[in-house]
Amino acid sequence: MRLVDLIRKKRDGGELSGAEIEFIVRGYTAGELPDYQISAWLMAVLLKGMSRAETATLTQAMLHSGEVLDWREFPRKKVDKHSTGGVGDKTSLILTPIVAAGGLLVPMISGRGLGHTGGTLDKLESIPGFNVNLSSDEMRRVMAECGACMIGQTASICPADKKMYALRDVTGTVESPALICASIMGKKMAEGIDALVLDVKTGSGAFMKQEADAIHLAELMVETGERMGKRVIALITDMDQPLGRAVGNALEVIECMEVLQGRGPDDLTDLSLELAAWMFYLGERTASVEEGRKLARELVANGSALKNFQQMTALQGGNARALTDFGLLPTARNRMEVASASSGYVTQIDCEKIGVASLLLGGGHNTKEDSINPAVGVTVHKKTGDRVKRGEALCTLHYDDDRQLTEAKSLIGSGYKVDATAPPLRRLLVRKVIGKV
Amino acid sequence: MRLVDLIRKKRDGGELSGAEIEFIVRGYTAGELPDYQISAWLMAVLLKGMSRAETATLTQAMLHSGEVLDWREFPRKKVDKHSTGGVGDKTSLILTPIVAAGGLLVPMISGRGLGHTGGTLDKLESIPGFNVNLSSDEMRRVMAECGACMIGQTASICPADKKMYALRDVTGTVESPALICASIMGKKMAEGIDALVLDVKTGSGAFMKQEADAIHLAELMVETGERMGKRVIALITDMDQPLGRAVGNALEVIECMEVLQGRGPDDLTDLSLELAAWMFYLGERTASVEEGRKLARELVANGSALKNFQQMTALQGGNARALTDFGLLPTARNRMEVASASSGYVTQIDCEKIGVASLLLGGGHNTKEDSINPAVGVTVHKKTGDRVKRGEALCTLHYDDDRQLTEAKSLIGSGYKVDATAPPLRRLLVRKVIGKV
Repeated sequence: MRLVDLIRKKRDGGELSGAEIEFIVRGYTAGELPDYQISAWLMAVLLKGMSRAETATLTQAMLHSGEVLDWREFPRKKVDKHSTGGVGDKTSLILTPIVAAGGLLVPMISGRGLGHTGGTLDKLESIPGFNVNLSSDEMRRVMAECGACMIGQTASICPADKKMYALRDVTGTVESPALICASIMGKKMAEGIDALVLDVKTGSGAFMKQEADAIHLAELMVETGERMGKRVIALITDMDQPLGRAVGNALEVIECMEVLQGRGPDDLTDLSLELAAWMFYLGERTASVEEGRKLARELVANGSALKNFQQMTALQGGNARALTDFGLLPTARNRMEVASASSGYVTQIDCEKIGVASLLLGGGHNTKEDSINPAVGVTVHKKTGDRVKRGEALCTLHYDDDRQLTEAKSLIGSGYKVDATAPPLRRLLVRKVIGKV
Repeated sequence: MRLVDLIRKKRDGGELSGAEIEFIVRGYTAGELPDYQISAWLMAVLLKGMSRAETATLTQAMLHSGEVLDWREFPRKKVDKHSTGGVGDKTSLILTPIVAAGGLLVPMISGRGLGHTGGTLDKLESIPGFNVNLSSDEMRRVMAECGACMIGQTASICPADKKMYALRDVTGTVESPALICASIMGKKMAEGIDALVLDVKTGSGAFMKQEADAIHLAELMVETGERMGKRVIALITDMDQPLGRAVGNALEVIECMEVLQGRGPDDLTDLSLELAAWMFYLGERTASVEEGRKLARELVANGSALKNFQQMTALQGGNARALTDFGLLPTARNRMEVASASSGYVTQIDCEKIGVASLLLGGGHNTKEDSINPAVGVTVHKKTGDRVKRGEALCTLHYDDDRQLTEAKSLIGSGYKVDATAPPLRRLLVRKVIGKV
């Protein structure tokens, strides 16, 4: 088999066989196939697409390029959630302790911020001492104690994806549904889970701006998961404005702890409980999603979810006191309000701009080498549909130095649209569920 | 400027600016841009295409990546011909001495065999002693003596193309009209010529099997040449059967010398004289193409063209006696006839198969490391429209060892189609001329 022939086949719109896809993934992981051929192949895949069968084989090949976690010593069901990423999207820190407190196992492997979106690992690391780099053995010990563990991708998990993702990032080959599906589902299946809930975002703050693209990706991931014998469903949810009010790592941790104490913003609370409810149902902890909702609400109300997160934080080396005493979390030195230039209703928020503003203040990586400032970010005061008066604050910027403050401020200003009439209500759950339930 | 952004722009169907294309070519030549990004960009170019303006800029950038030959000390017009390649396509060895004998300069830089097609350099090297690796200074001395010189690409000519072509070859990105145009026209313009005649092949033995593709490429190259201020025209010619009767390096040299002695096959003679006539006209040696045809015929009839080729051969270190005493050329030890399985008319020849058969006998490179056997090849006895009896020879194979003889023989057998009724006549000159004349 010659890689150049497989590149030409895909370039001309052909379908690759299972053996051909495995040849590529195995050879690339082993360092036998050069980057310059793989990148040409990736571009052909992006532009010509992959069939459902090809996507499933690619996902399998990614998964089996490394270790698959084995939880046989734990008799409970293993479940997880994955979000395609957004601005202020922080549900993992809320639903993981809820679901673990409810008796299921959550072996969550997460990522860092990508583009304008935040990353679960970056948020966790804003908790002083929190260590996301655990070995499989350390992860096992944390899981045994509290039922959940939140870590980063290890070297042994999907090495093919690790290598290919780095190449995709610099060759303009990220935005392919088949490649995204294989990358996400390969990693999630390597967690050794029984069921997965996907939160596929759509809107101005998502990677899939168009709902149709989000649905297509959701269907692809659900089908791929089902082909691999797992229970998988997807919710298509709104990312046309930030989720909750906090954008920025420590700010988001605070907001999550507020939700776990029953006093967080409605949209973030509702979505986190809904995702947790589906995890309970797919993990066979409850007989219905409705029962799952009830259980999730109870676990927040009686404090067990918060307690579970405190326990996990301590087990992973973090300062659990900071989860209720927010003064122990990193705090930015300065604040500045961004005021509305006119009165009326907020009819639209360009959500990506809010994310980029937080990034400019130091909340994300501008380059691979940048370190993150966990304290900075944006607090969103006005959301879509809210009334606002001229001069009233739309957002507050939290910053340490003012190098890119002006740019961040003008991004926020230009990201808001204020009109005389109220916009139609946008539902958080854009489309209920993709997948067999 | 970041290459990844330019890859994404092209991937999404955008048009690159002149500065962007120059950034890519300059950076790649200088070794500042990695192969793995360039190959992704090449695949995006192949699948999304390039505008005429982009193609022209790319050609300019290729040209200016290296040296442009300067012939100011020679007051005569400089002309050349380029063929897109075929089987038995050997006109360069005929028209070069005709045009040089007619008083124009022909600074021809040629290539090696590619895929199933032969290469001018490989043919010349079958003449004992012939050296195609001359420096610019040596080339200049040969030109001064006989008005022509036939050499291979030097390190200083279009280094960008040299590097990019090697990458295209292994990444499935050869077959892009824009990239082919830039590669060919960049090199030809680096010869410092005033005018160029393009012989664009179409049919089963050409790279462009479809006439429409050949016309598209011809138009692209002619327009690109005109944008660069040169007189360029293209003839679209038939490559649905081998040109002449000889396929294989020394066999082709013999046939060319027969044409220069007025006793070669009609199709090869006609096309060579036609191309030479256009070169005379574009190089302003004659006032019309018709006068060019007359001049070309005369220069063959009075022996000056043959004499010119003998002179050039001697100047480039070759044994000029071998050009009339063919026993001095390499000769294969064995011959075998391939007989027709039925009687009737030859209605079709899969010309690529004849080319591959010659390659299998050792006449071309199977891998980059293979050396060529100049003696082997195929003599074609029956051409399209010819009557043939069962058992009569279609071709003769010339070979030294019989390792791939059976495969070569069966390729020839399956390449011929013999039917009861004669096929319609196919014209050698498929479409007259593309370009302003």
